[in-house]
Amino acid sequence: MGNTTTIPDISLSPALVSHLQKAIPQDGTRDSLLGSVIPSLLTSIAEIAKDLQNSHHVSAAGTSNTFGDDQLNVDVQAEAYIRNAITSCPTIVTASSEEDPVERPVVHNSPASSTQKEAYTLAFDPLDGSSIIPSNWTVGTIIGLWDGPTALNSPPATSQFLSILGVFGPRTTAIIAIRFPSLPSVCLEAAFDSLTHTWEVTRPTLSLVSPNPKTKYFSPANMRSASDIPQYAKLINEYINQAYTLRYSGGLVPDIVHALIKGHGVYLSPVSDRHKAKLRRLYELCPIALVVECAGGKAVEFEKGDDDGKGVDILEREIRETDERGGIVCGSGEEVVEAVAKLFA
Amino acid sequence: MGNTTTIPDISLSPALVSHLQKAIPQDGTRDSLLGSVIPSLLTSIAEIAKDLQNSHHVSAAGTSNTFGDDQLNVDVQAEAYIRNAITSCPTIVTASSEEDPVERPVVHNSPASSTQKEAYTLAFDPLDGSSIIPSNWTVGTIIGLWDGPTALNSPPATSQFLSILGVFGPRTTAIIAIRFPSLPSVCLEAAFDSLTHTWEVTRPTLSLVSPNPKTKYFSPANMRSASDIPQYAKLINEYINQAYTLRYSGGLVPDIVHALIKGHGVYLSPVSDRHKAKLRRLYELCPIALVVECAGGKAVEFEKGDDDGKGVDILEREIRETDERGGIVCGSGEEVVEAVAKLFA
Repeated sequence: MGNTTTIPDISLSPALVSHLQKAIPQDGTRDSLLGSVIPSLLTSIAEIAKDLQNSHHVSAAGTSNTFGDDQLNVDVQAEAYIRNAITSCPTIVTASSEEDPVERPVVHNSPASSTQKEAYTLAFDPLDGSSIIPSNWTVGTIIGLWDGPTALNSPPATSQFLSILGVFGPRTTAIIAIRFPSLPSVCLEAAFDSLTHTWEVTRPTLSLVSPNPKTKYFSPANMRSASDIPQYAKLINEYINQAYTLRYSGGLVPDIVHALIKGHGVYLSPVSDRHKAKLRRLYELCPIALVVECAGGKAVEFEKGDDDGKGVDILEREIRETDERGGIVCGSGEEVVEAVAKLFA
Repeated sequence: MGNTTTIPDISLSPALVSHLQKAIPQDGTRDSLLGSVIPSLLTSIAEIAKDLQNSHHVSAAGTSNTFGDDQLNVDVQAEAYIRNAITSCPTIVTASSEEDPVERPVVHNSPASSTQKEAYTLAFDPLDGSSIIPSNWTVGTIIGLWDGPTALNSPPATSQFLSILGVFGPRTTAIIAIRFPSLPSVCLEAAFDSLTHTWEVTRPTLSLVSPNPKTKYFSPANMRSASDIPQYAKLINEYINQAYTLRYSGGLVPDIVHALIKGHGVYLSPVSDRHKAKLRRLYELCPIALVVECAGGKAVEFEKGDDDGKGVDILEREIRETDERGGIVCGSGEEVVEAVAKLFA
């Protein structure tokens, strides 16, 4: 592994705290979010970034037959940073991840206070985009926080109120989305300054709502399914003919973040019988959907053959099992509506 | 700007030096390459990486109207690191870049020795991929080194003997390609360890020669030209139907590096009357072509309407002006041959 030293004394800039506070109830019911949860999770993202910077064994992985093993190590290390971070968060009572998809109690450094009212479960994908790690492309971490001790059998639209996407590229950045009833939601970008050990707000408002974008972007995932889904092949050709700009890294986090930063984009990952869904609803689709919705966009399921599966919002359907998977169409609202109509035509 | 402190005492690991030596004449005619040129250039790449890590203003750039200005600053800073690096390289007598495309004499820290036999010109693109910098995607630096005081009017295949691609992602890596007559060429990956300040060899041999790749990759650049070039649209659909995996970041360096690391890939950037060539032959196409050829692949020009333009090797045509541009098809040899045949069908 690379350097596993923890980074001491990471802080959030006053401006970042101020922006986040606007979206969080200030009535004492959610004090742990800025008190421990968000700072701890952002610390773990900075730690993962630092670890990746010197994980040169990853470079060697692709050339050997033990690719899978080496790759796994980086995932496991990222998982460990997040698991360690939440030991300092008494209100995160359970956690599960794409690497260990069972909601288990969190053992904390110090016991919860007897007056604790908050109780959350964390669901995360510690290092998404393993196929592009060897080529040194940007990858990410996906985190969702849910009310109560389980994310299952409750409506994601209200139960999941916080998403954080860690973005590991030339810089270390994070997208933070928060949505509580009767408060303005937030979707912002923060960046980690490794000199001052501070997370700073770099874009206070990310928006996918642009009436007339200068450049239109599309990200066609699971493109192989286009050989099974003629509507998908046709749609891709329409984007080409309409001079949309292609951006597709194959990493869910960077692909979504690209749309958020540019202010426009449509990400498509249809599924077919031959090219089945890979994206986990709990660890990938729901946190991404919250981010996209908080930026004013749409995120719908792609479930061909579903009873009414013509564009159900991802956050409208309850999750029954942690390993459930699905397809997705998300991004700028009008693009999503149009794409879904064409995909199910 | 971010941190502009230079990184002290950067070194090359003994294994890296050893690998590079195999491709460099050891008869005293090329002593400056490992004596000053390659260490200085790799130092500048580490410096650019460190600078990017804390260039948070880049993040803010996309949200303001001054995007262009802020973006420029990062390019200019990268340019400054490379220009500064070569002041310590007496044998680099001239240099030009995509930012300043005039071959000018280099002013050195100390004068060249009177017995100096080597004389080179450096041609570089300091920070390629500006459109994806705001979204924190991997970007790169492209460097080519040529024999003599000018790269113009001489055959690139023999005059340009060294390419370095700096890769700024979660890690800092570099692809180094060297080719001299009657010596084995090298194409390797090195990674910068920021803890020890050492460049280490992480993949000693990058090869695009794989008789039976498990996964096939394609990177269709300038896709808008597919609306003008029916052969390109058809070819893209063939890749889809043949279940090739799409990877297209829109950054030339990461897109080429992805193919090198995976051991397979075809990168296409056709041009049409409406969608003209953007890639510079001197600062982008020639260094990329040397890397690809040293990995056993092919890199051909795309010049529709050319007299005999059906796949001329990029390195076979002399450059007349520093700003010349062209299209390219490169990557795994058999893929390039097949793609060119179809594009010009």
